Amino acid sequence: MANALNADPVPPMRGQTFEDLQVGAQYDTVTTVATERDIIGFATQWDPQPFHTDPAAGADSFLGSLCASGLHTMALAFRQYFDLGILDGTALAGLGLEQVRFMRPLKPGDVIRTRVRIKSLHETRTPDRGIVVLALATFNQDEVQILDMDLKILVARRRA
Amino acid sequence: MANALNADPVPPMRGQTFEDLQVGAQYDTVTTVATERDIIGFATQWDPQPFHTDPAAGADSFLGSLCASGLHTMALAFRQYFDLGILDGTALAGLGLEQVRFMRPLKPGDVIRTRVRIKSLHETRTPDRGIVVLALATFNQDEVQILDMDLKILVARRRA
Repeated sequence: MANALNADPVPPMRGQTFEDLQVGAQYDTVTTVATERDIIGFATQWDPQPFHTDPAAGADSFLGSLCASGLHTMALAFRQYFDLGILDGTALAGLGLEQVRFMRPLKPGDVIRTRVRIKSLHETRTPDRGIVVLALATFNQDEVQILDMDLKILVARRRA
Repeated sequence: MANALNADPVPPMRGQTFEDLQVGAQYDTVTTVATERDIIGFATQWDPQPFHTDPAAGADSFLGSLCASGLHTMALAFRQYFDLGILDGTALAGLGLEQVRFMRPLKPGDVIRTRVRIKSLHETRTPDRGIVVLALATFNQDEVQILDMDLKILVARRRA
């Protein structure tokens, strides 16, 4: 895990089209803190299992601590990716997620960061767009990976 | 698509353990409405692309209308599944998502409902828990499927 998060200190070019994207390029996001209040607030709305909403129930649970809903971890990582701006104005639509793994729980006070890697590029039958698969890997302050997910996004090509 | 959402009018048994779950069983959730305000609110926090936050930008976009972030559609469907209570108190942890497809956009005013199907069951090396894969299929008011996603959840077995 050493240097897991020191890949590329150069900010990515914003608003990349399909032609700009290079398989293997990777970018690290800024960090985000997940507070207990954030974790409970998100889970209360979307995933109110006691180990996501009640610290005492969390301590008694399988995971041994209050922890964030996986949906929350995904939303945090997605927002970190979004703020890099890689596909700012060029993303046309989200097509789906190829896979998501909740590798470790996200706990109150954790400071997370996400590495975004251009995993693959795919032509489509239409000349004005292509498909990119982005691999997002999210790490906590101990550089332990907590989330792995692959986003499939329809992206514009440059206008001729 | 006819009768797509009339599978099983009987409410599912709540709090099922691994032994209770039967592959192929399926349950339909209640309906939820996604308002423009909901869509814009969620996207402003997690996925502020203009076609998710600005009706005018949505109308000019690839999708032709303001539409919800895929994360929002997922969260709505998950909460619908959650409220069925199938794994109330028996779900130990979310392991991940095997796949997610955003099949159609979720638009303001859409009334959605989710069908939950027990897709597969898997033994683990430990005797007190197993893994269930749940297939969630979300439909709009026209019975058009908008979301397909498979949740992988660690679930408790009955105590001996």
